[in-house]
Amino acid sequence: MAIDLQTARTVIEGARAAAREKDLKPLTVVVLDAGGHVVAAEREDGSSTKRFEIAFGKAHGAIALGLGSRALMARAEQQPYFIAAATAAVGGSLVPVPGGVLVRDGSGTLLGAVGVSGDTSDNDEAAAVAGIEAAGLQAQPD
Amino acid sequence: MAIDLQTARTVIEGARAAAREKDLKPLTVVVLDAGGHVVAAEREDGSSTKRFEIAFGKAHGAIALGLGSRALMARAEQQPYFIAAATAAVGGSLVPVPGGVLVRDGSGTLLGAVGVSGDTSDNDEAAAVAGIEAAGLQAQPD
Amino acid sequence: MAIDLQTARTVIEGARAAAREKDLKPLTVVVLDAGGHVVAAEREDGSSTKRFEIAFGKAHGAIALGLGSRALMARAEQQPYFIAAATAAVGGSLVPVPGGVLVRDGSGTLLGAVGVSGDTSDNDEAAAVAGIEAAGLQAQPD
Amino acid sequence: MAIDLQTARTVIEGARAAAREKDLKPLTVVVLDAGGHVVAAEREDGSSTKRFEIAFGKAHGAIALGLGSRALMARAEQQPYFIAAATAAVGGSLVPVPGGVLVRDGSGTLLGAVGVSGDTSDNDEAAAVAGIEAAGLQAQPD
Repeated sequence: MAIDLQTARTVIEGARAAAREKDLKPLTVVVLDAGGHVVAAEREDGSSTKRFEIAFGKAHGAIALGLGSRALMARAEQQPYFIAAATAAVGGSLVPVPGGVLVRDGSGTLLGAVGVSGDTSDNDEAAAVAGIEAAGLQAQPD
Repeated sequence: MAIDLQTARTVIEGARAAAREKDLKPLTVVVLDAGGHVVAAEREDGSSTKRFEIAFGKAHGAIALGLGSRALMARAEQQPYFIAAATAAVGGSLVPVPGGVLVRDGSGTLLGAVGVSGDTSDNDEAAAVAGIEAAGLQAQPD
Repeated sequence: MAIDLQTARTVIEGARAAAREKDLKPLTVVVLDAGGHVVAAEREDGSSTKRFEIAFGKAHGAIALGLGSRALMARAEQQPYFIAAATAAVGGSLVPVPGGVLVRDGSGTLLGAVGVSGDTSDNDEAAAVAGIEAAGLQAQPD
Repeated sequence: MAIDLQTARTVIEGARAAAREKDLKPLTVVVLDAGGHVVAAEREDGSSTKRFEIAFGKAHGAIALGLGSRALMARAEQQPYFIAAATAAVGGSLVPVPGGVLVRDGSGTLLGAVGVSGDTSDNDEAAAVAGIEAAGLQAQPD
């Protein structure tokens, strides 16, 4: 089972609502299914040109290695050469900073991942978590 | 000026509504701004894993060369080596079949492009045009 | 839902048994999940060095576009420039000849794909189908 | 001479049995021949989507430079620019952390390599060594 489009839209709406409430910078939100493929994406007006690619890379890296992108940052701090090599190995899209959050259902099954980019990494992650919880799902940021 | 997110959402909604009315296969719709960057995307349930990449490639190729992807197909029929070379030159994402449609305002200014993939190329293009017109904008399919 | 490892092993065993019964050349069999990721692979002794990559490309292309690789061959015959462009767009691994077969359960849900390479494309496909049926699943070769 | 398929299956079975005995996380095990080409691979249920690529990269890097991937990690700690450059030079798949183990016969002849990914790098390596020894062969982790 994977995130369907209606759920993805709910996640994006929830993430954006949380961002507007906190007055964050314009965000880009990308939702991937459990195979790492795009289900839906929205780039808010004023979010820079390649934010889709950054947000995608956070979520794609999380799916690829089965860890939220905050855990990938910790690994990058310890072993930068591992993250560099893994990025090449998985095909070039793995952004190891917070904001790529795994999505699980109540029984722990992996459904997909959400990537957010545009504000600080911590704020990006908080928006992703808010969106996931708005859809009644479990967020795994690391 | 470029397509803003609200307009992109209207385009996607219009394209999907037209597709459901004609009972097309599940579609993926991608909207790019005038710089060729993702504004919004939705992949309907059942649309295959890499449809985002195909739809993106149609729209990205259209922006890259300033022609709807139907015109790129005509060129591919005449000079396949040109399209192959252009694909490499622009960075690998240029899909020369109908379904990549330029978006212009009433005075002809380029605002962006829409890419659709999932059904036949002709039906993909018709859905893209319907979405653009639903937003009160001008569609240029070739 | 996707193919689990035990099912993948059954598919490979079934494909290889069919190949030995028909006295085919040494085969490589790759099983992917519904997201296009490797679950299991075996390369028979004497199967050439890059057969994994060819078999993977057949199955990966099938998952990417939601069609068995026989249908991708038909498209390549009609519009070679589309297949060339799609190959670039999906990341370089899409081999449009028979032998990449989608796997569905009894209700039609996509579970993954099987790629086979080593003998003629028709024989490769027959082995893939035999393996899928040995696991009690539905094969979609085009 | 190189690892044949039957031996590769024995290695994978041994690695997985050792992993289950130690209650490791779900692993992906890849066996390459002496030319660095896939002989067999298995991804256990729950092992994340790109673990094949990571495990492959450990084994491929080991074959590429003739050293177990633990030695590549030591080199990465000392000269990260060398490992980055070598990764590009060999085609992008060289993952310099433990878990890529060379396989030799009793007289020291190189037969191939095993790559494991899914748990800690040390545990991945231990599973690879256990698999190689289960097949009566010599493991070279560094």
